[in-house]
Amino acid sequence: MSGACSGDALKLARAIAREQTVEVPPGVGGEALEARMIGRLESVEPATAMGWDQPRSAPNRHATPHFHAGIAYPLAATGTELTQILNVVYGNVGLMNGVRVVDLTLPDEILSALPGPRFGIGGIRALTGATERPLVGAAIKPLGLSSTELARLAATFARARADVIKDDHGLTDQPAAPFTERVTAVAAAVATANAATGGRTLYLPNITGPVDTLAERLELVAALGLSGVLLSPSLTGLDTMRAIAAGPRDLAVMAHPSHAQSAPGRSEGIAPDVLYGTLYRAAGADMVVYPDAGGRYAWPERACRAIAQRLRSPLGPMRPALPTPAGGMNIDAVDRTAARYGPDTLLLIGGSLLMQKDLEGAARRLVEAAARAGNASP
Amino acid sequence: MSGACSGDALKLARAIAREQTVEVPPGVGGEALEARMIGRLESVEPATAMGWDQPRSAPNRHATPHFHAGIAYPLAATGTELTQILNVVYGNVGLMNGVRVVDLTLPDEILSALPGPRFGIGGIRALTGATERPLVGAAIKPLGLSSTELARLAATFARARADVIKDDHGLTDQPAAPFTERVTAVAAAVATANAATGGRTLYLPNITGPVDTLAERLELVAALGLSGVLLSPSLTGLDTMRAIAAGPRDLAVMAHPSHAQSAPGRSEGIAPDVLYGTLYRAAGADMVVYPDAGGRYAWPERACRAIAQRLRSPLGPMRPALPTPAGGMNIDAVDRTAARYGPDTLLLIGGSLLMQKDLEGAARRLVEAAARAGNASP
Repeated sequence: MSGACSGDALKLARAIAREQTVEVPPGVGGEALEARMIGRLESVEPATAMGWDQPRSAPNRHATPHFHAGIAYPLAATGTELTQILNVVYGNVGLMNGVRVVDLTLPDEILSALPGPRFGIGGIRALTGATERPLVGAAIKPLGLSSTELARLAATFARARADVIKDDHGLTDQPAAPFTERVTAVAAAVATANAATGGRTLYLPNITGPVDTLAERLELVAALGLSGVLLSPSLTGLDTMRAIAAGPRDLAVMAHPSHAQSAPGRSEGIAPDVLYGTLYRAAGADMVVYPDAGGRYAWPERACRAIAQRLRSPLGPMRPALPTPAGGMNIDAVDRTAARYGPDTLLLIGGSLLMQKDLEGAARRLVEAAARAGNASP
Repeated sequence: MSGACSGDALKLARAIAREQTVEVPPGVGGEALEARMIGRLESVEPATAMGWDQPRSAPNRHATPHFHAGIAYPLAATGTELTQILNVVYGNVGLMNGVRVVDLTLPDEILSALPGPRFGIGGIRALTGATERPLVGAAIKPLGLSSTELARLAATFARARADVIKDDHGLTDQPAAPFTERVTAVAAAVATANAATGGRTLYLPNITGPVDTLAERLELVAALGLSGVLLSPSLTGLDTMRAIAAGPRDLAVMAHPSHAQSAPGRSEGIAPDVLYGTLYRAAGADMVVYPDAGGRYAWPERACRAIAQRLRSPLGPMRPALPTPAGGMNIDAVDRTAARYGPDTLLLIGGSLLMQKDLEGAARRLVEAAARAGNASP
């Protein structure tokens, strides 16, 4: 939150607490209603400590001091529907410049109403059989390959005993590899490879798509005996992930951050650790993809660690979720990334793996490196 | 898009075109595939002309020059599903700082696949009977009132012959006014008032909520004989609005920008005129709420005019949508706002109307002012 001086900051914080709830000028709702419904301002302090999530522009920081405001919203305003929780946490204030959500604590009532991960870290380990070591994930891509070509890639990764294979998040239902054809072909290829190796590689098809196709796509996924899906919840709406995680099908969910608009160092939006670490997890993600430090998005390491920490910290009755750092991760960086995040991590290697001449050999070495990293962990 | 020099900008533009499609390093996909799937870079130019959508920080502007890049994405990558169109327009680049969508032209294939407004400006005029003048809308609020109190407010506005009454966008299914109870009570109150006045005031209940409640909520809305709904598409996912607009129920949709994270003057995100003006309309909004200049969000007038312009400009076979400026609009500002936008506008007056002692009289004067403004239009 930015304001010219602490008086302005106090005024802005009060305006936010009102904007996000009753959204009427003082006096309209009556005192009793306002006391019941408006967010309670708990603190307003200059943001003197330079956290990793400070806006990146140094000149701006001097010109406009930043403040942290703590606001406690009543359950009477949020209810327990995820759409309205988001609306109160970051609704109309998203239309204002200089207001950012940098922390979020959800009360027990909301934590028990939202599903959280169905599988969690333990459940994904049980599905894959990978114990006590970082998991390895690979992506089938690029967009434009045929279903047969994508299935061939998946078979290669499954023979190398990658733990997880995901669709590229841009693979939906395009003519080059239509959904039903692709998912059926890839699932068969992975099943064949699993039967040959005795392994349990998971295939997560991307089901991000029109709301009125989701039921049908989930039905195919279940009919093929797959254990999970890939979803970009910020494209479909976060509540679509909540509905899948809370729904009748026993599917793990990997969340992809496309279109989420949350990155470190901005003056607006929801901070990455809050969105990917707390909200994606609360909405039911078992695995959460985010750009790793050192990758092509240039995110600072502290921001990435903060996401992983929120995914694995206690959160009411919810299971921990698997941090899934990605985004230009080099195949030589497995040791560094494993050391950064520890064994409860899914290392997602995309394009740099696909550049290797001997794809199966390279994938196999990745899995071996992950196994070594697990042994090296304390 | 910001880059240190034009060479960097060119490199970044190429990286964006790749990131948003194949998302693999050069060489992986093969030349033929890349030629078919990667966005075609059409232009990279220094953003010398200072448009209204330039980032707001002057020091930053000097430190980091800005460039406009034109990229044409192939239909083979986008397909015609809205989620994937958004993913290509602003997917992974949403995770990068300094990349903003400032313009968007949709091809005929996409324009005919998306619904656009079902009613459009003409259809809303036909529903309300308001011809050739700005329409007047009022909101029932605040959150925390009972269904009976909200119904009483709605009756007052309907007796004053407001054209449209909308739920506050924060009214969902909270205990103070649960969805079914509230919508039933308000619909009945508005119907009674309409019968008394001979008017045709529309009531738009807020159906924003969990995806698995939408069908049921829409069914109630239709069963009550209502003609439209309010939805915050950036909370539910834009595709939910598309599905309603393309669906079997004959309902007009008013879109509210809560959680949309698009505001003027930022270095990231989708510019407000592109998101609210083109994408919300293409996804089926008949009326689009946005913060008006002079209101409490301090948006520049040019940004607001640009939204209205996109809502009413030719867009393939799609009907025009009603600009619905709001957000702290003063009841004395009707003439100014009507002059700013012309008669094809819905003037949404919220809190400042609710502050009036004689609510019905004040609402009536608003409608009269709108009628005068219509007569004064060329």
